[in-house]
Amino acid sequence: MSTAANRPVGPDHVWSVDEHLEDILSTVRPLDPIELQLPDAQGCALVDDVMVPVSLPPFDNSSMDGYAVRVADVTGASEEYPAVLDVVGDVAAGDAAPVQVGPGQAARIMTGAPLPPGAEAVVPVEWTDAGLGGGPASGMRARAQAPEGAEGQVRIFRPAETGAHVRPSGSDVRAGDRALAAGTVLGPSQIALLAAIGRGTVRVRPRPRVVVMSTGSELVQPGEPLAHGQIFDSNSFALTAAARDAGAIAYRVGAVADDADVLRSTIEDQLVRADLLVTTGGVSVGAYDVVKEALTEVGEEEGGGVDFRKLAMQPGKPQGFGAVGPDHTPLLALPGNPVSSYVSFELFVRPAIRALMGLPEVHRPRTRATLTVDGPLRSPEGRRQFLRGNYEDGEVTPVGGSGSHLIAALAHANALIVLPEDVTEAEPGTEVEVVLLG
Amino acid sequence: MSTAANRPVGPDHVWSVDEHLEDILSTVRPLDPIELQLPDAQGCALVDDVMVPVSLPPFDNSSMDGYAVRVADVTGASEEYPAVLDVVGDVAAGDAAPVQVGPGQAARIMTGAPLPPGAEAVVPVEWTDAGLGGGPASGMRARAQAPEGAEGQVRIFRPAETGAHVRPSGSDVRAGDRALAAGTVLGPSQIALLAAIGRGTVRVRPRPRVVVMSTGSELVQPGEPLAHGQIFDSNSFALTAAARDAGAIAYRVGAVADDADVLRSTIEDQLVRADLLVTTGGVSVGAYDVVKEALTEVGEEEGGGVDFRKLAMQPGKPQGFGAVGPDHTPLLALPGNPVSSYVSFELFVRPAIRALMGLPEVHRPRTRATLTVDGPLRSPEGRRQFLRGNYEDGEVTPVGGSGSHLIAALAHANALIVLPEDVTEAEPGTEVEVVLLG
Repeated sequence: MSTAANRPVGPDHVWSVDEHLEDILSTVRPLDPIELQLPDAQGCALVDDVMVPVSLPPFDNSSMDGYAVRVADVTGASEEYPAVLDVVGDVAAGDAAPVQVGPGQAARIMTGAPLPPGAEAVVPVEWTDAGLGGGPASGMRARAQAPEGAEGQVRIFRPAETGAHVRPSGSDVRAGDRALAAGTVLGPSQIALLAAIGRGTVRVRPRPRVVVMSTGSELVQPGEPLAHGQIFDSNSFALTAAARDAGAIAYRVGAVADDADVLRSTIEDQLVRADLLVTTGGVSVGAYDVVKEALTEVGEEEGGGVDFRKLAMQPGKPQGFGAVGPDHTPLLALPGNPVSSYVSFELFVRPAIRALMGLPEVHRPRTRATLTVDGPLRSPEGRRQFLRGNYEDGEVTPVGGSGSHLIAALAHANALIVLPEDVTEAEPGTEVEVVLLG
Repeated sequence: MSTAANRPVGPDHVWSVDEHLEDILSTVRPLDPIELQLPDAQGCALVDDVMVPVSLPPFDNSSMDGYAVRVADVTGASEEYPAVLDVVGDVAAGDAAPVQVGPGQAARIMTGAPLPPGAEAVVPVEWTDAGLGGGPASGMRARAQAPEGAEGQVRIFRPAETGAHVRPSGSDVRAGDRALAAGTVLGPSQIALLAAIGRGTVRVRPRPRVVVMSTGSELVQPGEPLAHGQIFDSNSFALTAAARDAGAIAYRVGAVADDADVLRSTIEDQLVRADLLVTTGGVSVGAYDVVKEALTEVGEEEGGGVDFRKLAMQPGKPQGFGAVGPDHTPLLALPGNPVSSYVSFELFVRPAIRALMGLPEVHRPRTRATLTVDGPLRSPEGRRQFLRGNYEDGEVTPVGGSGSHLIAALAHANALIVLPEDVTEAEPGTEVEVVLLG
C-alpha cells in the first residue's frame, strides 16, 4: 500500500471517479498464491501456466461398445456375408492387462477401454450379432447376468478401417502442451481439464476475506424492534452479499455505534480475518462522522493511513481509501446512504476484490443503451451520475429517482445509467452508457 | 415423481432433447419452502410476496449535514445579510428525543437524523458559517473534539423552502406496499431492501443438495498414480463445480467401481443428503454398464424407477432419468464421456436444479450468432448436435471437433453451438443458435 501522504494531490482536490478507482487499483496487490484442492479453487484464477504431464487419452481406446478386430478379418463383411470371429474375452474400461487379438479373433470391448494388442479397429455392437446368433444386436447383455458373452463367436456385419471408433492417444491434448494459461479463471470445464490431466491441487490466488461493517447509532438489526429515530441496518447485509457475489469470503460485522474509540477497536479486532475492510457511513462533513474521525490519523506513522476525499460523483461524493493495521490492510470507507454505499461498492470495492483475486476482468460489463423515459433526465454539472435503471434488449429505463435513500428502486434495477460529468440533461432516446449489475 | 411406467412411450422410442427435458421439468417439483436468515437466502427465490410493514424512511429525516430551521427565519438570507439563529443543540442519527426548534432557533442536524419538531427545512452546513463566525464552512468539527459546536449562534447564508433537504417519511416505500414479489431472486440489492424493512428472516426455497458420483473401474483420483488402462476421474469434479455454479449445495462422491451392488449401496447411502442424484457413465449398451444394470429395476414397486433411453442428440445419446429411494429422489444418469456428461448437465441437470429452487429462469441464456469457421460443419441427420464454441460479439467459432472425449476444447469454449435435427451441414456465415455458458 502507498500512503495517503504520497498521493500527489492536496486535501481540497475533488477526485474524479477514474482517479479514485486508479488510486485503488494501483494500490491493491493480488493476494499471495496458495495451493488449493481442485474443488476449492473454483472461481479462482490460475497463477501459473498448467502444462499437460501425460497425453489425453493416455492410450488408444474405444469410442464405442463393440468388438475390437483386425481390419483384414472384417474386409467385405455384410449382413448377408458376416465375418465370423472367435471372441477371446472382454476388454472393459480399467482393465490393466487386456487380451491379445490374433487373426480370426475379436475381443468384446467397452467404451473407453484400451484397444488390445493386435486389434486395429472397433466395430460397434449394433453392427454385430453380439454373439447371440441373430441379426444386428441392440446392445450387450450385462456381464454379471451373461458372462458367456465374453466367449464363443461373434458375427460382424460391416467392415472397418484402421482406427475406426478408436480414439488415438494424445488426440485430446499431448504431454507438454499448455493445458491452461496463467490467469485462467477456473469454472466447471477448466476444472474438468485439470482433473483429467491428473491435477489434484492447483496454485491460485485465494478468495479474499472481506470484513463489512456499517456504522451509525441509529442502526438496528433487522427483526429487532425499532424505536423513533432508528432505522434498520441494511448496508452490512447488502455489501456482505455483494462481496460474496464478487468472489470474496465475506464477514458481516454489523452496525457499530458512532463512537470513534469503539470503531477503532472493532477494526483492530477484525484485522486478523481481513484482506480488505469495508465500512459504511461516517465519512461526510457532519459532527458525528466517526469513521473519518477514527481513521484520519490512524497508522500514518507506519506508512498507512486513510485518506478521506470528495468525489465528482452522485451518489457517493464522500469516500475514504487507505490502509490500516500492521499489514497495511486496504480499507474502503463508503458513504452511509444505502444507494450511495451500494453504487460505491459496485464501482470501487468489487474491482478491488477482483484485483486481490488476480482476476483478469475486475469490472462489471458495460454496454450502450437507448434511454427510454418520459421526460429528460437531469444531472449535476461536473459530477458523474449513476442512476438506477432497468436494461433490456438495448433499452434502459430509469427506476425511481436520484435520491440516495431509495432502496426499493435499487432492488428493482438491474443496471446503472451513467451520465458523464459534462452532461446536465439526457433527452429520451439518447444513447447512454450502462453498467450491467448481472 | 411419476414412474417410468407412466411414460407414454415404448422402450424403443428415441426421445428428442425437448421431450426428455419436458419429462424432467414436469416431474421435478420445487423443494419445500424454509425460513432462512437473510444472508443465507442469497441466490434463493422468495416463496411469498413480501409486504412493507413500516414506511421507509420511517420518519422525516435530513438528507444533509446542516441546520434544521424554520422557513420564515431564513427568508431572504444571503452571505451579505445572513440570518443569525440560536443553536439549541444537535440532532444526530439515532437520537430518540430530538430538540425542539422554536422561532429564531436552529438545531445542528446530521444526515439521516429525524427532522426535529418545529423545523421545516434543512440548510446544508456549506451554506452556513457552522457557528464559527466566518464565511461558508466546509464542514462541522467532530462533536468529540468540539462539543461547543452544538451551542451558540449560526449564520445562515441562504433561504430554504419547506421540505428542502428533507426526505419525507414513506418517500422510499410505504407501509402496505409490496416490497418484492414471490419468485424474486435475492441478490445484494433485494437483500438491502428486505433488511431495510426489518426482515431478519425470509421464506425461500432452499438450495438443493446435489450428490454427484462418477462410475467406472478405470477412474483414478487426480493426483494419484495412473496405471495402464486407467484415466483420471474428471466428471465428478466438473459436475460438482457445475452444480455449485447452478446454485446447489454439491457433494462429490467420486468414482464408484463398475459393480452394480456397490453402486446400489452407494446410492442408498447417499440418499440421506440428496435432493437430486447425478451419476455419470454406465448408461450405454455395453456389458459393464452398471448404472443401467443397477437402477433399471430399482424402486419400481414403490412408484419409482429409472428409465434409460436414447436421445436424438450428440453428444449425450444415452440418458437415464427417474426416481430412487423411499422419497422418490430424482436421479439423472448421464453418459460417461466427459463432454457428453458436461453438455448433458448443462441441458438437463442445471434446469432440474433451478426448478428445485423454484427459480423463474431455469435455462442458460441463448442467442443467435454468425458461424465463423473455415469449412462447413457436419451434423448427423435426426440428431440435435451441440458443438463447443467461442462466442464473442455476435460471432461464434467452433473449438475442437465433435469428439465427446475432447476435454481440452471444452475448457476453452464459452458456448454451445446448436445444430438442429434437420441440419446436416452448416456453412460458414450461417446464423446459428448458441447456448451461452456464462
